[in-house]
Amino acid sequence: MNYQVELEKMGSQARAAAVSLRRKSARQKNDALAAIAEELLARRDEIRAANVIDLESGAQNDLSQAMLDRLELTPERFDAVVAGINVVKELPDPVGTIERKFEMSQGLSGEKVRVPIGVIGIIYESRPNVTVDAAVLCLKAGNAVILRGGSESIHSNKALAAAMGEGLRKSGFPSTAVQLLPWTDREAVNLLLKLSSYIDVIIPRGGEGLIRLVAENSTIPVIKHYKGVCHIYIDIAADEDMALDIVENAKCQRPGVCNAVETVLIHQGLASSLVPKLASRLLSRNVELRGDSAFCRLVPEAKLAVEDDWYEEYLDMILSVKIVPDIDTAIDHIEYYGSHHSDAIVSNDNDASDKFVRDVDSAVVYVNASTRFTDGAQFGMGAEIGISTDRIHARGPMGLSELTTYKYRVIGNGQIRN
Amino acid sequence: MNYQVELEKMGSQARAAAVSLRRKSARQKNDALAAIAEELLARRDEIRAANVIDLESGAQNDLSQAMLDRLELTPERFDAVVAGINVVKELPDPVGTIERKFEMSQGLSGEKVRVPIGVIGIIYESRPNVTVDAAVLCLKAGNAVILRGGSESIHSNKALAAAMGEGLRKSGFPSTAVQLLPWTDREAVNLLLKLSSYIDVIIPRGGEGLIRLVAENSTIPVIKHYKGVCHIYIDIAADEDMALDIVENAKCQRPGVCNAVETVLIHQGLASSLVPKLASRLLSRNVELRGDSAFCRLVPEAKLAVEDDWYEEYLDMILSVKIVPDIDTAIDHIEYYGSHHSDAIVSNDNDASDKFVRDVDSAVVYVNASTRFTDGAQFGMGAEIGISTDRIHARGPMGLSELTTYKYRVIGNGQIRN
Repeated sequence: MNYQVELEKMGSQARAAAVSLRRKSARQKNDALAAIAEELLARRDEIRAANVIDLESGAQNDLSQAMLDRLELTPERFDAVVAGINVVKELPDPVGTIERKFEMSQGLSGEKVRVPIGVIGIIYESRPNVTVDAAVLCLKAGNAVILRGGSESIHSNKALAAAMGEGLRKSGFPSTAVQLLPWTDREAVNLLLKLSSYIDVIIPRGGEGLIRLVAENSTIPVIKHYKGVCHIYIDIAADEDMALDIVENAKCQRPGVCNAVETVLIHQGLASSLVPKLASRLLSRNVELRGDSAFCRLVPEAKLAVEDDWYEEYLDMILSVKIVPDIDTAIDHIEYYGSHHSDAIVSNDNDASDKFVRDVDSAVVYVNASTRFTDGAQFGMGAEIGISTDRIHARGPMGLSELTTYKYRVIGNGQIRN
Repeated sequence: MNYQVELEKMGSQARAAAVSLRRKSARQKNDALAAIAEELLARRDEIRAANVIDLESGAQNDLSQAMLDRLELTPERFDAVVAGINVVKELPDPVGTIERKFEMSQGLSGEKVRVPIGVIGIIYESRPNVTVDAAVLCLKAGNAVILRGGSESIHSNKALAAAMGEGLRKSGFPSTAVQLLPWTDREAVNLLLKLSSYIDVIIPRGGEGLIRLVAENSTIPVIKHYKGVCHIYIDIAADEDMALDIVENAKCQRPGVCNAVETVLIHQGLASSLVPKLASRLLSRNVELRGDSAFCRLVPEAKLAVEDDWYEEYLDMILSVKIVPDIDTAIDHIEYYGSHHSDAIVSNDNDASDKFVRDVDSAVVYVNASTRFTDGAQFGMGAEIGISTDRIHARGPMGLSELTTYKYRVIGNGQIRN
């Protein structure tokens, strides 16, 4: 198999599909999404059978139970995937939105208007639902997409991609607007990451290892979704009950996600009062506590944190806690150890919260709220392709609008430059 | 010299400077810019002496007259550099601008606000004025900057960077907010392009070779400024005099820049009337004409264009011309051969111009105006760092706002996620 030739072919088909897509109306795109949903439903059994092949070979290859669970397209998950398409269909189309009108010299008038990016590459791991979720968001924003999923879910992904291609074809779209890489080895990915004439941006979704691999090998711009080492700073002017509720929610409600809190910083002025209550609340929820020495003196059940704990995204019922002398130390800690994802202050002192919000440089900075609110749906985006920890193009939750770029339209009546 | 150690040190100093810079007010930044201008003026003779060293060694190394000209910091150019600082100083600070306010669930209120990107790497070629122009724009937007100029201008650049560092220091800023790479060999650049923990974005400024080198070797996001193969399509419903004026302006007013026109496409319906007038106008300006066979039949002075002509950015008094049967062929030509920089239609038919503006996917699309208007000053940006031909983050002219990113502020009163 000559990957290079095949990949160039996929790339050039994607580019041609992108030209066709960007000329489609919102209504045409919505019709195509409806056709995709219909085709998926029509092929429900076929897709399930492909998924069973993946599950069986996963079991033979001794995949962990957690991996097998992620791999399975249960009937409920399949229904959720189809329902998700209808959610995206109902969202407003960002393409054509005029962001800004402006007057130029000599009476020229300018407009900055949203247009599709073009061709988006999505590189992801085992969950087959990403195949559809990601493709549908890209399509709705007028982009062609090249998908590369994990080897474990290759049969499921092929079945899903084939259904989407057929839905596109039936609604008069090029079926190559969604293409799945049929090879899952490293060599094919590395070559894909060099197709900068055909792919405009790569969005990797998965663990840190995958994202790092992609970022280091790509000559195409990458929008990274690294880890979330999220902090809550409990200020001396905090409402203690509010602080307890927020920390418990941010740690326990769904510990395995990137917007869960990993480190709590507590102003020393309320440590003696707050720390025992916090410890008792979290220990009752079976949270393992790792504290600095000041915290451990107050909480005998806590382990002493080591340096690595402050960098760690536990994604688990583990929390690190540090007592800090003041808000500046808290802000410095977040700058040094954090991942600039989501960080919160609990305080009723406006000066303190203003300072925190100004000086903490994270995608989302909260005052008196749980870090768990960082997601596309909560931000009114309806659906998200992910949460960017990058600073270029998109930061924080990425919805449809973040899957577009802009162009300028300038209207004149014969103006020339002096 | 251990480049890696030295570069990591520069990177970490830049990161620390960026943290300091993003906490500075607009007024503090303006004061620093004023101090930089003052320091440059105070060191005028010293800088001139450094420039003379570069010019002498350039002459010894047989640099072309054009290169030596670019290299020279004449008194007029030096004054223009200093005047440019004052222009940037007067521009509004994009940092802190609230782009959007929104209500979230449970009464949370959100704001999307402009913040500095962080650390910007600028890689450029011989003109020493870029050292100051680029650094000052980055600083005004609250960013630290690492500069890497060409070897030919290294003494000039060092003198300019030293003056800027001193100006920063005198106004209470870290002098490391502007750092110049003292090495100009390939190895140092390649290592710089891997410093993704310290540098947030790389902006290369120069020829296609430099940009390609940077894009292919960087693990840091790159905002590319590739070539401008700009088109003017003269529709059947064009005002012929307007078309002649626009083409002459776009080709001749400044042929060596990226927004000059390189290819004109003419609807066949007005070819017999328009082509002789166009040819006579351009030949009288000493423009070399390269046409397709239909054009050459009408213009004996024209050369027959070859396939490569349609891809070519001449940057010279040369124009390629093609007769097309309809607007669709013109749009397809621009899609296939163009560089998506700036393209124009001349037409009094609103349907045709609407179609052109919708379907041509370029950073700037014009109706009845010269492509020469694509620049930051014309777009009300006051100054520009360049013109992006990329689709990610910034497209077209890049001013101060494009040197920022955003973060979200979310204010609550104890909200937790259900």
